[in-house]
Amino acid sequence: MYRINNNYLKLENNYLFSKIAEEKQNYLRNNPEKELIDLSIGDVTLPLVSSVQKGIKNGLELLSCNSTFSGYPPASGHDFLKNKILNVDYKNIPIDLDELFISDSSKGDITHILDILDNNLNVAIQDPVYPVYVDSNIIRGNNIIFYDSIEEIIEKKLDVDIIYICNPNNPTGKLLPRETLEKIVSYALNYNILIFYDSAYEAFIQDKNAIHSIYEIKDAKKVAIEFRSFSKTAGYTPLRLAYTIVPKEISNLNILFKRLKSTKYNGPSYLSEYGIYSVYKDNNLHELKENISYYLKNTQILNDYFYFKGMTNEKEVNSPYVWINVKNDSWDYFYYLLNNFGIVCTPGSGFGKNGKTYIRLTGFNTFENTLKAIDILKKDLK
Amino acid sequence: MYRINNNYLKLENNYLFSKIAEEKQNYLRNNPEKELIDLSIGDVTLPLVSSVQKGIKNGLELLSCNSTFSGYPPASGHDFLKNKILNVDYKNIPIDLDELFISDSSKGDITHILDILDNNLNVAIQDPVYPVYVDSNIIRGNNIIFYDSIEEIIEKKLDVDIIYICNPNNPTGKLLPRETLEKIVSYALNYNILIFYDSAYEAFIQDKNAIHSIYEIKDAKKVAIEFRSFSKTAGYTPLRLAYTIVPKEISNLNILFKRLKSTKYNGPSYLSEYGIYSVYKDNNLHELKENISYYLKNTQILNDYFYFKGMTNEKEVNSPYVWINVKNDSWDYFYYLLNNFGIVCTPGSGFGKNGKTYIRLTGFNTFENTLKAIDILKKDLK
Repeated sequence: MYRINNNYLKLENNYLFSKIAEEKQNYLRNNPEKELIDLSIGDVTLPLVSSVQKGIKNGLELLSCNSTFSGYPPASGHDFLKNKILNVDYKNIPIDLDELFISDSSKGDITHILDILDNNLNVAIQDPVYPVYVDSNIIRGNNIIFYDSIEEIIEKKLDVDIIYICNPNNPTGKLLPRETLEKIVSYALNYNILIFYDSAYEAFIQDKNAIHSIYEIKDAKKVAIEFRSFSKTAGYTPLRLAYTIVPKEISNLNILFKRLKSTKYNGPSYLSEYGIYSVYKDNNLHELKENISYYLKNTQILNDYFYFKGMTNEKEVNSPYVWINVKNDSWDYFYYLLNNFGIVCTPGSGFGKNGKTYIRLTGFNTFENTLKAIDILKKDLK
Repeated sequence: MYRINNNYLKLENNYLFSKIAEEKQNYLRNNPEKELIDLSIGDVTLPLVSSVQKGIKNGLELLSCNSTFSGYPPASGHDFLKNKILNVDYKNIPIDLDELFISDSSKGDITHILDILDNNLNVAIQDPVYPVYVDSNIIRGNNIIFYDSIEEIIEKKLDVDIIYICNPNNPTGKLLPRETLEKIVSYALNYNILIFYDSAYEAFIQDKNAIHSIYEIKDAKKVAIEFRSFSKTAGYTPLRLAYTIVPKEISNLNILFKRLKSTKYNGPSYLSEYGIYSVYKDNNLHELKENISYYLKNTQILNDYFYFKGMTNEKEVNSPYVWINVKNDSWDYFYYLLNNFGIVCTPGSGFGKNGKTYIRLTGFNTFENTLKAIDILKKDLK
């Protein structure tokens, strides 16, 4: 008689996104004449850029011909793309080919990697946070210690095995300065702590002084695993492509991760790889950057309005997110915005207790709708 | 100080495929004038069929246009494809939409599903076997009991929590008759045992009396989880698409699997889905069947030769594999075939101790090369 993993029963039901969708439907049903502007979108909305389209067509031609067809990809992706990633994304950082693992999903990598570690570990996770870090650790039976800021970890000398850092942060959009990252890398080195550095929004960084990879910091390769995704960088959410760097300097984790990959994975889609390969090969990264600029402009418009009202701390945005202190219960504010202005936000309480009086808005709607939302808010919220 | 999952250290290094590749390279280097015929291929070799190509192009058009772009797929795949799978593959079997989980990989599903179960379980795995079942259970700290045949499980009343069945079997190619499957389902029902039914080669079944889904057997939905893949069925190894049925009748496993999916997955590639969707939508399954027939014809040619020599048991093939009793150490025979005839096989010992005197050949090379191999063998092996 099999037994289940009881840790699953400890997971809280996070109805955040399904509840938002439901309330949105209710509003549309009850107000058929009114317009609704969704600023809660956490997904790209612009179509694939032309160099991605071209690459996928090329890849498809190769798979459609006897002499160029190729079957299973290597469990960590094809070298043709790995070489491009290392030459472009890590131009000045020495990373070996076998330290880079291309996969179908960053969410997959950052959760499944726990498989190579023991359970009952102590892990430090920021609050507010992307709920997936929390849930994947509950499933492993790990002990979660929530932190408010990196400084708190160091000041309190938190005794943990893993520190999760999401930079730029989802949901707060906050970007950590180099100095803070230097401090935490040095702390991790001293106490033999692993850093899981989730860099899914790296492409949105505008701050000229900010670092883009944790490995820009000295000795970070001895402690940090870096996760990146093409989802937001390349508008790739429907195509599934990401990568993870597991340096060989971290005891035997690189070998164990390789073994995890060869046992449980058969690699990413060739067409998804080929789309990105084409962008790099033809030097068309500007196409990706144009889309990111579009989302960033929307985000900046939202941020400007709330910054002016003293409800956000950041002057410049470095992510597609604006984290707004509404000084009231976030679900109350959600209904206030929806029922009065037809605007949908994400209540911050869905990301942890520190989000209780915050809402998250995103720049993923259109420029026109973003402007329209601001006009509505300006009229009624002044 | 983090600790690793020590079970990883218990994994044996299976050098099977890398060793074969290395010996192949050696041969080609040392015999540049000679031809080599690889009958060890465990991957499809024919290009994508035209309806898949068409579907991917359609999907790409949709993703390339503002009004039809869609982002993250649902964690278990899109309903447009789920409906087709249920209507076609499970025409006469009642399966609900939320019992079907589309993913990027059957290997992923059959290994990661262990996450929802406790560890230290007793699992029954056939010898010889696809090594992934074994390794994924070692990683979980499960206790593996190897069985020679389904009958042995029942006769010995093996006390296990999970029984793995691969049907048609990889590497032996053997197809289980309905009666044997009925017996094991009834045994599993009596003793509350889970069946993991891996049906990756279902599309190769020729036997008119054989069942194609475990759910054709009464009450199997109470005990069995079925894994299927488009890799071999649709020549999809580079495109990554598979699905798993987790019935709601098996206590709460369906809910737990759904939670696993929503926590650690973001769904399969839209283009991979669209390629298969197009095959179903336009009733073009015959295109997939033509490719399978091609591989089966090659396999039958190989099988006929060795059946005539009394080295295989099966008269008709129901998989792309031929399992040949060479009555000698399988690696010795590997070198014998390679060095004398330039033919590459897979030594059976790589699949378990019961494979020690067997080799595996496949029908994935071309028709011409398969015939050529037989001609060479006939001349020299008579």
